[in-house]
Parts: sequence; structure tokens; C-alpha cells
Amino acid sequence: MKPVIAYLGLGGMGMPMAKRFLDAGYPTTVWNRSPDKAAALASSGARIALSPADAVAGADFVFTMVADDHALDDIVLGDQGLLGAMQPGAMHVSMSTILPGTSRRLAVAHGERGTTYVAAPVFGRPEAAGAGMLWICLSGASGDQDRLIPLLTHLCRQHYNIGSDPGAANVLKLAGNFMIASAIEAMSEAFVFGEKNGLDQKDLVEFFGGTIFSCPIYQNYGRFIATQNFEPAGFRLALARKDLHLVAETARTSNVPMPFLTTLINRFTARVAKGGGELDWTSIAIDVANDAGLEK
Amino acid sequence: MKPVIAYLGLGGMGMPMAKRFLDAGYPTTVWNRSPDKAAALASSGARIALSPADAVAGADFVFTMVADDHALDDIVLGDQGLLGAMQPGAMHVSMSTILPGTSRRLAVAHGERGTTYVAAPVFGRPEAAGAGMLWICLSGASGDQDRLIPLLTHLCRQHYNIGSDPGAANVLKLAGNFMIASAIEAMSEAFVFGEKNGLDQKDLVEFFGGTIFSCPIYQNYGRFIATQNFEPAGFRLALARKDLHLVAETARTSNVPMPFLTTLINRFTARVAKGGGELDWTSIAIDVANDAGLEK
Amino acid sequence: MKPVIAYLGLGGMGMPMAKRFLDAGYPTTVWNRSPDKAAALASSGARIALSPADAVAGADFVFTMVADDHALDDIVLGDQGLLGAMQPGAMHVSMSTILPGTSRRLAVAHGERGTTYVAAPVFGRPEAAGAGMLWICLSGASGDQDRLIPLLTHLCRQHYNIGSDPGAANVLKLAGNFMIASAIEAMSEAFVFGEKNGLDQKDLVEFFGGTIFSCPIYQNYGRFIATQNFEPAGFRLALARKDLHLVAETARTSNVPMPFLTTLINRFTARVAKGGGELDWTSIAIDVANDAGLEK
Amino acid sequence: MKPVIAYLGLGGMGMPMAKRFLDAGYPTTVWNRSPDKAAALASSGARIALSPADAVAGADFVFTMVADDHALDDIVLGDQGLLGAMQPGAMHVSMSTILPGTSRRLAVAHGERGTTYVAAPVFGRPEAAGAGMLWICLSGASGDQDRLIPLLTHLCRQHYNIGSDPGAANVLKLAGNFMIASAIEAMSEAFVFGEKNGLDQKDLVEFFGGTIFSCPIYQNYGRFIATQNFEPAGFRLALARKDLHLVAETARTSNVPMPFLTTLINRFTARVAKGGGELDWTSIAIDVANDAGLEK
Repeated sequence: MKPVIAYLGLGGMGMPMAKRFLDAGYPTTVWNRSPDKAAALASSGARIALSPADAVAGADFVFTMVADDHALDDIVLGDQGLLGAMQPGAMHVSMSTILPGTSRRLAVAHGERGTTYVAAPVFGRPEAAGAGMLWICLSGASGDQDRLIPLLTHLCRQHYNIGSDPGAANVLKLAGNFMIASAIEAMSEAFVFGEKNGLDQKDLVEFFGGTIFSCPIYQNYGRFIATQNFEPAGFRLALARKDLHLVAETARTSNVPMPFLTTLINRFTARVAKGGGELDWTSIAIDVANDAGLEK
Repeated sequence: MKPVIAYLGLGGMGMPMAKRFLDAGYPTTVWNRSPDKAAALASSGARIALSPADAVAGADFVFTMVADDHALDDIVLGDQGLLGAMQPGAMHVSMSTILPGTSRRLAVAHGERGTTYVAAPVFGRPEAAGAGMLWICLSGASGDQDRLIPLLTHLCRQHYNIGSDPGAANVLKLAGNFMIASAIEAMSEAFVFGEKNGLDQKDLVEFFGGTIFSCPIYQNYGRFIATQNFEPAGFRLALARKDLHLVAETARTSNVPMPFLTTLINRFTARVAKGGGELDWTSIAIDVANDAGLEK
Repeated sequence: MKPVIAYLGLGGMGMPMAKRFLDAGYPTTVWNRSPDKAAALASSGARIALSPADAVAGADFVFTMVADDHALDDIVLGDQGLLGAMQPGAMHVSMSTILPGTSRRLAVAHGERGTTYVAAPVFGRPEAAGAGMLWICLSGASGDQDRLIPLLTHLCRQHYNIGSDPGAANVLKLAGNFMIASAIEAMSEAFVFGEKNGLDQKDLVEFFGGTIFSCPIYQNYGRFIATQNFEPAGFRLALARKDLHLVAETARTSNVPMPFLTTLINRFTARVAKGGGELDWTSIAIDVANDAGLEK
Repeated sequence: MKPVIAYLGLGGMGMPMAKRFLDAGYPTTVWNRSPDKAAALASSGARIALSPADAVAGADFVFTMVADDHALDDIVLGDQGLLGAMQPGAMHVSMSTILPGTSRRLAVAHGERGTTYVAAPVFGRPEAAGAGMLWICLSGASGDQDRLIPLLTHLCRQHYNIGSDPGAANVLKLAGNFMIASAIEAMSEAFVFGEKNGLDQKDLVEFFGGTIFSCPIYQNYGRFIATQNFEPAGFRLALARKDLHLVAETARTSNVPMPFLTTLINRFTARVAKGGGELDWTSIAIDVANDAGLEK
């Protein structure tokens, strides 16, 4: 008999994941803060819950994918939160990009109530989520990870065990988003440098994406930058900025100077200040170009 | 009949390239400022020249691979320089990492004497040069590029036409070295961030090198960083710093603000100031770690 | 009849201010988290309180000077906090360096209880506090400011009305600490630049302090830097770093990119990571010098 | 009998200095690349020279004040240059902001011809030059400095002996321009931070200029920033940018990482790229404000 799933948080990433579970035939309950999104899944067979607590009743695995630490705390610990409403032995699979400390805190809270917690942040854009081609990194008790893995095969092309510290996968996810943002800035600067010295940005993408930087981030994001293709946003800049601030907060508490990070924070802040927070995060390329006197 | 080759500049990159031409049976004359390096190729059949002018006499293709613009100017324009000593129609293939303006200037000088100039900077470390697995980007007259390509197959896995402006390939090469240095700094920051928050740096390399950053730069340089493997230098930091200053000089004349670049320049300067210029350029990871209070 | 004063928080700055009120003959109650500091004022005639609530009973003016927003919240809103224990019409004069939002929030809380709140952060080091030579900036209702000013004459050489928004003076204080830290970094870089090019750092201080930068910050802090005089700390680096993070937090919420600020945050973080948080904040000059290969 | 003076370079700073010598009754010859500026001084009694060599014939003191190292080299070493045309024992007083190495090189060249060289860069804006209220720092042989000082009393309120190394005063001048630019950026960031959090920029200038930053740079430049008063330029941004690149070049050769400097270089580069190089250098405040979403 298939395990029962609850999926909470149906944004750009959560929606296609919930749908994949439904398509694979799992009994799935969904919940979203704005209920219209949940309703859209009813035709796919989802049970629509009225609250997080309602959603998790009877579930074996509870996935959450929300915007930030605050929203997660609300869903878990708030009025009608899921903590305490889950059945004994059920697992909370937390996919949001959050502070490592939040995972550590929630893992303790779950432990006290006989439920478990695994951090499972993901890499990949909405299309990858819809195709089950994400990369997922896991942290938490290894027995819990083992139980979870059969489900993950519906979502990802690969999963990685980052360790038993519940916050470990969140550390890695934050490090990764920082590295991606760094690659975006580095490409933006290099491409504008190229353009102002006679090259075509598209030739730079083609060359580097085919040689020393032949990997998804440089190939895909490089193309977005060179073609000024920032809408619709695969990852909204305002949300990415939030993540960079999570890196900064974690760097602050662990005493790590990160000059590339702080440069990025200024860059993302400028974009938001100028009203561009709804574009894709690659749109910092606009400001890199404008600062060099190019109209983009 | 095979064309006659002259190879000038037998450092870590030039030596294996000259050797590949010799091994492929091309009549090859070599020259190096410190003559002992040239002598080492005599047993492979190289003719040893006493000066650049001597080296290029009778050559169809003259390759140069030297440390900087100044050294190249010396070899080309100096006393006993190659300019004017090349036979009409011969081609100067300039592989050094230099200012675009230097290429443009030398192309004009060659044109006035009936010889030609192609910029052909390379990507790859000494091992790749020895294995004929470099990537080479070319700029100059397309007819000249066409004549050159058969020879390049001995050196590279792929070559790219960047355009007819003789400086174009140098622009791309500078952009590339900047992007690599940016990736080194980004990884260094991310890995120290990970380590100070409980992760093993090697796990970060493995995860990112196997997923979103599955490309040579992140895989290879990531491993050097995570294992603190900085000797022998594949690319000496002091030389890399020189390249970053070429980027800065080109950014200055073309009015491109580049905050990542300037962060890197401070980083590389500190490394040299502390006496670490002979290590590999990935060794900036030492300072990133030290700044976070880690002993490395 | 002199108004009754309560002074809470007897650190390096609070202690001399409380003492000045006692010396001027005001009936003064003092409280400090670690009680030994308060006890030291008993011989000067201070009443020693056991809690914030105890301290403020009967007081007309309640001064607080504590390490951070959290400590202030604790003193005001915590168990045995001062809010609600103050007599109607009494004024809370908040001198700590805190978030503007904290002042705005506390002003509302006071208003709901019939007491008032004025933000009154100060500029000056402990010696200036002891000599009544601080500069104080005020924000809050102008009537409240007027009532407070006669008392301030014992503490400061000048006071400024920054406006009626309770957080305004905190904004200015944060801006000021950022500007001072910027001056410290700028001098540190300039002096190391001078030293490595043959000048004596002391000559730089003397020249600039006597000409275009003839003001306290450059004269005093310049001397600390040039003579490597970082102990005892007039302002502990760890505490200054906390203030820079308050600036960063306020810049984040108001969308202000501040590249000098973020450079400073990396600098201060490195100092703390290396174990130097107890020195004066001018000690970032050590790292500026070390990064340039100078032993300091 | 009054010594004979030659003044070469009649820009915004040189013109008022030459005029002061004429007004004080010194026999003065002037020269400027564009001759109309020189002609304007004929009515004040100046002899108009046709070339640098012509200008310095018979002069005891030769002042030069030109835009950059290249222009100075041209005037001194070029065709019709002053070197060799000066009478034995005459002194070249070099007031331009140039590389220390240029001064060292020119001092040697003068020494070989029996003439002397003193570096004498100045601090102050055109109004201060016209009022004889500059600050002048001197480096070179102390005997030469002593001979020069009586003349300087017509130009400056104070002069300082920075040492016998001819480049020393240039090092100090570069350090100073860097510190001023840092103060401009720090104020710009602080004032925008204040404005976006409810303060008036003019109140910030008044407070800080009257207290901890009570010195000309913060008072005058602070007012320019707060009132957006960038024309006419007291010091053109494009020229200031040139100076920052001289600092960067000197920092490069002496291995000094300077993160504030590199931030400034990006800032000034952006201003020029956007077409704002003719405004005063305080106009970087426009970009600081724009980056925060403020229209200025």
C-alpha cells in the first residue's frame, strides 16, 4: 500500500512536485496559504486541506516548500500548525531554503513529539521539478533518509546524504545558491566586458558553455544573460535576495568574511530598490550593463 | 611537405606544445630566453635558435608563448626581434595572455611587413597542453585562421573563431581567466562557509561537481581547494595576478566597473604580499580560510 | 527640587554618565545586570536597585545604556522590566545604539502606558562621557526633548534635535558609526599605502589631522592607528561590529546598497574570527597591514 | 632682486597660482598647451612663452601643474621640453598629482643636468589657490625646500616637509586624494541611508560637520552632496578617477590590497561610463542615490 503524502506550499516549485506524487498514484493531501492554488490540484485527485494541521492528519510523509523561515515556522508552530498534528512516526520533509538553525530547532521539536524531521532542499528550476529531474540533498537521521528515498525517485535525478546534522543540507543549499549567484555576477561582468570590447555576448556563452564551464548553471543562466531573457522568472530576484541574506546571517554567526557575497547583496539590493525584484535573479545583468553605460 | 615551425617561449605551457609539434614530425626551431630549456628539446630533434630573429628564419608559422605584453614586445620588436626577420607570408601565432591592444598593434606591424598575425590564446593547464587537449580561441583574418587550423589539431580538442579583430581572442581569454578566478573565489568562500558550519569541504566539491557545476573548472579546481593542493602550481598565482591586471587595464580603458574583479585583485595582491605568489592561483583559498579564523 | 533619576546599564559609557548625575547632586538610582558595577557607585550616594522595575520606581527620568536591542528589550519588556513600573509622565531616555524600529516600537509601548520615550544616542568615548563632553542627538516629542535638555547639560557639550520620529536619532547614530568605521578603514589603507611607499604613518596623521581632516575622528583614531594603540578598547570591536550589523539590517529593510559598509563587515568579521574582538575597533588596521605583508 | 619664475600649466589650479606670483610682483613667464589661457595673463604682466623650453630660459624656479604623468613627461622630456633648457642651479617645482616613480625619475634626470627637482603637490580647490590658502607638501633635498619656501608663502597657508625622497610628497598626495574620495563615498552612503530612513541629508551634514567630522572635507563636500551641487566642478570627476588609478598603480607595485580604493574605482568608472565625468567628483553621490532607488 502506498504511503500517504501531504504537500504544503504550492508555489512555483511545490506545485509540480505535488503533481508528480499525484500522477504517481500516491494519496496526497495539499494545502496552500492562498487556497486557489490548492484547488487547481483537486482535478488531479488531491484532497484539499483547510489548514496545515488538517493536511497532515494521517500522512506518513509531510513535505513543506515555503518562501522563508518565518512562513515555515508559521506552518509548523503556528495556530493550526502541523507540529503535534502529525501521527507518531510520520516524517516532516522540509524542502524550503532556510537557516540551518531553523532545521536544527524544528528537528528537536519533532523529536519531542515522536515525529521526525529531514531537511531536503532542492536544486533545479520549476521545469526540472515538473520533470522529476531535481537534485536533492538530505540531512537528518540516516534511517529516516532511507525511508524517504523511494519517494524522492519521483522528484529527482539524484539525492545526496549530507549527514545527520539536520541543518547540514541547508548549509549546502545556501552555499549553492551563493555559488550560483556568484556565477551570474561573474558572467554578467565578463559578458559586458566582452561586449564593450567588441565581442557578442552570445559568443561568450557558446564558447565557455562548450569548454571550461560546460555545466548547467553557465549554459542556462549564461543564455538568459546574453539574450536578456528575464521573464517569466524561474527564480524571482526578491526571493533569491532573501536567500543571500540567509547566507549572510549564517556567515555572521559563524564568523566567515565573504566579499563576493556582500558584493552580491549590494547588487541584489539595488535591483530591488529600482523596482526589479519580480524578474529572474539573472536580471542583475541589467545593472552590470547599465553601470558600464550600456542600455539594456 | 610539412610546414616549418618556430616556437618561442618554452615555459610550462610552451614546452609541451613545442614537443607535440616535434613528435608529430614537423621541422621545428625553438627559442627560449633562458637557453637551457631550449636545449632540452634538442634530443627530440629541435633546432635551437640563438635569438628570435634566428628562430623565425625560414619558418612558415611562428608561435609565441611568453609571460606578458612586455616580453612579447621584446621578442617581436626588440633587438634581434622576430619582426622583419620572418619570411613574407609567414604567420605569427600569438598564444600569450596579453592586452587586446597589443594584438591590434602587432597585427598592424606585421601587415606593414607582409607577414600576418593571429591571436590564439589557450585554455587548459600544462597536462592538457601535453595531451593536445587545449581549447584555443582564434582572432584574425579568416583566411589566416584556415591555414592555421591543421596545425592546431595537434594541440587542442577544439578551436573557435572569435572574429577578425586581432584583439578579440585576447578579450575572450581575459574574460575567461577572470571567470575562472571568480569561480575559485566563490568556491573558496562557499567551502569555508560550509566547513565552519559543519560540512566537509570534499563533500561540497563532490556534490556541486556532480550536479549544477559539473564542469572542469569546478571539478578540478574545487578538488585543489578542498584538499589544499597548491603545489606544484599549474598556474602560478603571480602570473594569474598579472592577467587580472590586464583585465583591469582593459576594463579601465573601456569603462566597465567590475566589482568581482576588483575583489579578486585585492585577494591576489594579499597573497603576493604575504609571499605566496609561487603557489597555484587556487591558493587564494588559504587567505579566505585564514580570514575566517581557520588555519590552513 | 531636583528630578529623580534612574540609570540602567553601567558599562564603559553608562558608568561615567551616572556618576556625573550623582556628582551634580541628583537623587539617582542605578542598576546593572552584573551587580558589582552598581555597588561601586554606592559610595557616591547612588541607591542600588535590584531590578529594572525596582530602579525606575519614583524616577522622573530613566536612562538606559545597554549593549544591544535584545538587552534593551529585556530591561524594558522582560520580567521585572521597567515598562509599567514607571510613574505616569516619567520619561525613558534611551541612549543605546539600537535599531530605529526598536525605538519606534518602544515609543508606542510607553505611550500606551502614559510614559514617554526619547531616543538619545551619544557620540564620544568614555573619557568624553566622564568630562560631560559628549554629543547627543535626540528624537521624540519636542516637549519631551525640552524637558530633558536641562539634564543633558551635565553630559554633553551639545545636543541636537533630529526630529519627532522616535527612531530618527538612532538612524543618525547608525549613520555616524558607519562613517567613523569608514574613516578608520580609509586611514588604515592610506597609512599602509604610505608606509609601504616610504612614509612614516605618524607623518600622515600629523599632516592630514592638521589640514583637510582636522577633526576629532581623524586626529584621535589616526593616532591610535599609526601608533598601534588598541588597548584598552575605547570601543570594543565586537560591539562595533554589532552596530555595523544594525546598519546592514536597516539598509536591508530600506533597500540601500552600501558597498563601504559591506567591506567593513567583512573586515570586522575577520578580526573577530581571528580572535581580536576585544581590542578597540581601530584594530582593523592590523589586518589591513597584515594583508599587505606588514607584521603589526 | 626677486627671483624669476616660470609657470607651466594654466588649468583651474595653475592659473590662480601664476596670477598670485604676478600680483606679488615676480617677473613671471607662463606657458600653456592651449595658448589662449596664457594670453589671458599678458595684461597682468606675464611674458608668454611659445614652448616649455622657451618658458624656462632664465627662470630660477619653474613650476609645473599639468593633468597627468604623460603630460608632465612631455613638458619635461619632449621636443622643446624644459629639461636641459633650464639654467644651472634652477629648480623644477612639480605640483601635479603624479606617480611617485615619475618624481624619482625626473629628479635623477635633473640631477644629471645640474638642475634640481622638488615635488610640491597641493591640497585645496581653485578658490583656495586664488586666495593663497592651499596646503603644500614638499619632498626633495632639504636645501632646495628651504630655498623654495619664501615663494610658497604666496600660495599656501602651510607647507610640510615630507622627506628627501623626491616621490614622498606624491605618495602623500595620492593617499590624501584616496582619503577624500573615501569620505565622499562614506558620506554619500550615509546620507542616502539617512534619507531613506526619514532624515534630511542637510541635517546630517550639519550634525556631523559640527561635531565629530568638523573639518573642511566633511563640511564642504558634505554640503555639495546634500544639496546636489556638482557644477561647476571644483575637481572634475574624470581627473579624480585618473588619480585613483595612480593610487591603484602604486598599490599594485607596492603590493597593498585596498578594498575601499577598488570600490571607489568601480564607482568612478560607472560615473564616467554613464557620461558624468565632467561633474565634480562628489557627484558619485548621484549613483549612490540611484542605486538605492532615489531619483537625483
